[in-house]
Amino acid sequence: MSSSYGENIRLTIFGQSHSPAIGMTLEGVPAGLKVDMAELNAFMKRRAPGRDSISTARKEADEPEFLSGLKDDITCGTPITAIIRNTDTRSKDYSELKVIPRPGHADYTAEVKYNGFQDFAGGGHFSGRLTAPMCIAGGIIKQFLKEKGIEIFARVYSIKDICDEGRFDKPVSDKAFPVVNDKKGEEMVALIESAKADGDSVGGIIECVITGLPAGLGDPMFDGMENRISKIVFGIPAVKGIEFGAGFEATKMFGSENNDPFTYVDGRVMTKTNNSGGILGGITNGMPVMFKAAVKPTPSIYKPQTSVNLQTKEETELIIKGRHDPCVAVRAVPVVEAAAAIAVYDAMLGN
Amino acid sequence: MSSSYGENIRLTIFGQSHSPAIGMTLEGVPAGLKVDMAELNAFMKRRAPGRDSISTARKEADEPEFLSGLKDDITCGTPITAIIRNTDTRSKDYSELKVIPRPGHADYTAEVKYNGFQDFAGGGHFSGRLTAPMCIAGGIIKQFLKEKGIEIFARVYSIKDICDEGRFDKPVSDKAFPVVNDKKGEEMVALIESAKADGDSVGGIIECVITGLPAGLGDPMFDGMENRISKIVFGIPAVKGIEFGAGFEATKMFGSENNDPFTYVDGRVMTKTNNSGGILGGITNGMPVMFKAAVKPTPSIYKPQTSVNLQTKEETELIIKGRHDPCVAVRAVPVVEAAAAIAVYDAMLGN
Amino acid sequence: MSSSYGENIRLTIFGQSHSPAIGMTLEGVPAGLKVDMAELNAFMKRRAPGRDSISTARKEADEPEFLSGLKDDITCGTPITAIIRNTDTRSKDYSELKVIPRPGHADYTAEVKYNGFQDFAGGGHFSGRLTAPMCIAGGIIKQFLKEKGIEIFARVYSIKDICDEGRFDKPVSDKAFPVVNDKKGEEMVALIESAKADGDSVGGIIECVITGLPAGLGDPMFDGMENRISKIVFGIPAVKGIEFGAGFEATKMFGSENNDPFTYVDGRVMTKTNNSGGILGGITNGMPVMFKAAVKPTPSIYKPQTSVNLQTKEETELIIKGRHDPCVAVRAVPVVEAAAAIAVYDAMLGN
Amino acid sequence: MSSSYGENIRLTIFGQSHSPAIGMTLEGVPAGLKVDMAELNAFMKRRAPGRDSISTARKEADEPEFLSGLKDDITCGTPITAIIRNTDTRSKDYSELKVIPRPGHADYTAEVKYNGFQDFAGGGHFSGRLTAPMCIAGGIIKQFLKEKGIEIFARVYSIKDICDEGRFDKPVSDKAFPVVNDKKGEEMVALIESAKADGDSVGGIIECVITGLPAGLGDPMFDGMENRISKIVFGIPAVKGIEFGAGFEATKMFGSENNDPFTYVDGRVMTKTNNSGGILGGITNGMPVMFKAAVKPTPSIYKPQTSVNLQTKEETELIIKGRHDPCVAVRAVPVVEAAAAIAVYDAMLGN
Repeated sequence: MSSSYGENIRLTIFGQSHSPAIGMTLEGVPAGLKVDMAELNAFMKRRAPGRDSISTARKEADEPEFLSGLKDDITCGTPITAIIRNTDTRSKDYSELKVIPRPGHADYTAEVKYNGFQDFAGGGHFSGRLTAPMCIAGGIIKQFLKEKGIEIFARVYSIKDICDEGRFDKPVSDKAFPVVNDKKGEEMVALIESAKADGDSVGGIIECVITGLPAGLGDPMFDGMENRISKIVFGIPAVKGIEFGAGFEATKMFGSENNDPFTYVDGRVMTKTNNSGGILGGITNGMPVMFKAAVKPTPSIYKPQTSVNLQTKEETELIIKGRHDPCVAVRAVPVVEAAAAIAVYDAMLGN
Repeated sequence: MSSSYGENIRLTIFGQSHSPAIGMTLEGVPAGLKVDMAELNAFMKRRAPGRDSISTARKEADEPEFLSGLKDDITCGTPITAIIRNTDTRSKDYSELKVIPRPGHADYTAEVKYNGFQDFAGGGHFSGRLTAPMCIAGGIIKQFLKEKGIEIFARVYSIKDICDEGRFDKPVSDKAFPVVNDKKGEEMVALIESAKADGDSVGGIIECVITGLPAGLGDPMFDGMENRISKIVFGIPAVKGIEFGAGFEATKMFGSENNDPFTYVDGRVMTKTNNSGGILGGITNGMPVMFKAAVKPTPSIYKPQTSVNLQTKEETELIIKGRHDPCVAVRAVPVVEAAAAIAVYDAMLGN
Repeated sequence: MSSSYGENIRLTIFGQSHSPAIGMTLEGVPAGLKVDMAELNAFMKRRAPGRDSISTARKEADEPEFLSGLKDDITCGTPITAIIRNTDTRSKDYSELKVIPRPGHADYTAEVKYNGFQDFAGGGHFSGRLTAPMCIAGGIIKQFLKEKGIEIFARVYSIKDICDEGRFDKPVSDKAFPVVNDKKGEEMVALIESAKADGDSVGGIIECVITGLPAGLGDPMFDGMENRISKIVFGIPAVKGIEFGAGFEATKMFGSENNDPFTYVDGRVMTKTNNSGGILGGITNGMPVMFKAAVKPTPSIYKPQTSVNLQTKEETELIIKGRHDPCVAVRAVPVVEAAAAIAVYDAMLGN
Repeated sequence: MSSSYGENIRLTIFGQSHSPAIGMTLEGVPAGLKVDMAELNAFMKRRAPGRDSISTARKEADEPEFLSGLKDDITCGTPITAIIRNTDTRSKDYSELKVIPRPGHADYTAEVKYNGFQDFAGGGHFSGRLTAPMCIAGGIIKQFLKEKGIEIFARVYSIKDICDEGRFDKPVSDKAFPVVNDKKGEEMVALIESAKADGDSVGGIIECVITGLPAGLGDPMFDGMENRISKIVFGIPAVKGIEFGAGFEATKMFGSENNDPFTYVDGRVMTKTNNSGGILGGITNGMPVMFKAAVKPTPSIYKPQTSVNLQTKEETELIIKGRHDPCVAVRAVPVVEAAAAIAVYDAMLGN
């Protein structure tokens, strides 16, 4: 099912941008695990809209209400369901989109797929808002993984052609803008604000690192860590590419450059470089897993665009209203962490 | 299961590089579809080893024997199983790898995962040889898709830093080296031969195009076309990255540049550019689906490398024997087509 | 996942008897189908507790609130989620059960499986209350099936050794007690009331008929209609057996008696008898599908029983409090219809 | 997929009665488990045809050839595939069945489902012959389970109205006819032979017991042990009913009779009776799991039967040729063991 993910756990996400609620069900989590609600809510806030000058003006508290699966905040072995009520919805902003689809958005493809019955308000099930339930699941699972010594942290690697600098080996999530080099971060924010002022948007690349993983995680062929992670990361709206370790750069190297030599450090097998991104044959080798996700510029821009009128069947100009982020890559940073956490945990439960 | 793929069809791949046979089972194909065996064998030959100066010296006929699922070469509705006997196996070449894992290969991670019980000969289940069964399935399915007007064709987009040139809008598979610009192709071959002479290897990027797809294929969230295609393409050994449409380049654009304006051509909705790679919200929009896969340099090189001895627990030098391609990206071209065909067909059966 | 069912749709049930809410998510339903809420609520009432002398005194309105997947009561193609708030909960009635498990109940097995972290109040996720979400899904789907001319109706076939009489070829759900022969029904009610007065309980058999099915539904081996229906029907608490058509009686016949002779009626292939219950080789043959489900007596009885104290590790007497049905088979009648509807619809979407 | 079973392992069965081979792939088995081939072949012989007066005259050695997944008869972690070549096929015996379907068989339903493209020879994929691959998988798994102290054994419980007698608490598979009471067994054989002489067939009930299971196996709702076992047992051709523990008999008891009182034996929780068949809430309670499967009389009988001619669309008499068992229940005994083993092992790997 397209709104479900996982083999050993199963995450199901439901809701539309303007339906009564959005939410998630997470099956397969063992009984007896404690959820720290304050920590979860802090994680949710990293994704929540309406926080600053560079995110959408839509305001949502985004505090999940748990309906099942917990007893005194401890998992009881049955499906965990949590919901978030949608409150600040303005569906009338979207009424035009059924006839004139927004370029770069799923309006047209949803119209074809659902024969006109899709819930187009706010992007429906395709809305970035649906990443909130993914963050509920991922936020819980990050806590379970931390207990096992596994940490997952992501940063804004680049915005348009401005690239972060410096070694990324610890979380930067306590920063207002999640980069290693704050000066670069300021440049990025300035670029986003400038695009916003222009009624335009920009894209970016998110880098994610997972440390503390044991070697031996993942499976050959179609359930390797690359397959598992990419399957969920492409579930984040606007992601159009993913690469592991050196990724596309690896194609520019000789084998003798790209191969990571093995060595022993403190009696443990490690590699001297990490071009593989911690994954060999789909299976973790004990080095940090590293990947980058390409996030396209927000398709909803305020500049006039060329589209079509599906009723009159002719080209037309479209001017988008509504409230949108000028750069979805920024708020997607915790979502990428959530996605990685879910993929890793699913693989671990099968080991 | 890690060696299975698909929701509406299910492809299961079995075998190790040096086991009695390799093969595949394909479930869920409707009854009544004709398989052209000559065409299938021609497709298999595009991947088969031992054909020229730049592929491994191992010789395998790679003609599948069908055990079930067909009656007079027509599908009868039950699982289709085909096998290829392994003949030219030289397992003694590999005996050392259990103790001294090859950098960039799955030897070490398989040792950890399977506690020493893995079949390491020839790379076992991790061998590129396992892409042959994927080509049986994909080769059959390409025929079914062609009947529906859908064509899938891939090329070598780049080898190391040499990039193909020219518009890629029709198959180049009849060429000895699958590029648009043959002069660029010659440069690539020269580079591969030079790396081979050096005992080294090179990587490359494969581009794949799917034409004739209807709009409306794929599903929101985790079963979008990007999720589906990436899940199978990362099942091809050595793939370390994938991008759809403009992919990572899209992150360098403004939204106003990246958004593909809609238009009508001959009464049909199309887009003026195709930065989305034919996919919006995970769903096809009727434009060609386009993606690129990054293939790392063959990890098996003949130059001395640094590895570890898992018994003595110390660093050691490794010199690899055996027969290997100096650039797996080349033979992976039809495999990428096969993978794309399988992913597309699986999505279509669910529509 | 154990709380999910289906291949082409996926039903996920969540909630515990005394958690904030119970509910269900139904994925894979096509867009554009109308749900009649009044009809759904009427169906829900057939299962709801607190209606008469022979059901539990717990009172729940059991009107579902839809959170997603519908737009103006029409499916929009995305997961449908509906919840029912739990209101009349008295958890203190159950505090003893963690230490002294009820015979015939899941208290002990849940304790072992969930290491003491299970939510034991009201039976937790094992409660018959969880059949309410199954009825939401099944109630909706019954409407979709009716549109296609498919009807599903069940009756109480027997209570203990009292068996209904008469031909069961149309719904009896408008009756207070769902049997064909009302006199037999009265005897059954009297027997249940007598058992209740005695602090005891009784079991029964439910028969379900599905008419209007096309031939060709279901798949060989593990997805035959028997496999599909039994997998979901055993998800109804207290079901301990299932048989299709003549079922166990067929083992007492000669082949020449049991085989259903084919014939033509109005140009359509039919069988003269229906010992197969409408299923041959797992696939429907166009005759009514018929099955019976054995429902054991409610394990919660008020008579003193022998159990064990898991803390002191010795035998002890248990006297159960709480509110329970003296015969769960009665309220399970619409649940069996719901289960059958879900199984049939899932099979139909795959055809 | 309909020819696959399992969540944590996945068994896929392929082949038709008269295709070049039949076989199975078993994914998800951990590495490092030894398969005793002599023991497996001995198990296969219990199901093999052509052994005595009461089974089909078709002769097949039924010794599996392993193509992958084993190294020196030890599992290596990758999919295990084994095949059996079909040798003694006489397809011409079946040419008529496409036009005149056999009552009680899948000929007609397959014709509808596969639009005439089904492989009807020998029953195709619906043939009892396909239980041989199930026995390969089950035979291997029985060995793995035995290592863990789990034994699975089945008997003929009844043939038509002759019922076995005596306590069934240990295997009877070394007997020529698998019953507890050999005198009853002789009566059953005489009945089968008499039916055979008459050109007729008889049905029977198989009882299966699983000992040594830990408590806590199985999952709530749709993955309880009843759901899991019934899903695979209905994959055995001719099975029309299944019941666990007291099953249908439980519906005739009061709750106070049917509930199994808990007690302690040697410090371990047990029940004084076992009406639940070792399963409470879908989860094992540590008592033996017990179930019975109803096997209908072989539909292929030699007496003249009424059928239809699908071309002329009229009733006609059918006289079946070919080679068939007069009572499939007998040879199905090891198949039921195999099915139970697969279901149990699948559940165990998920715990």
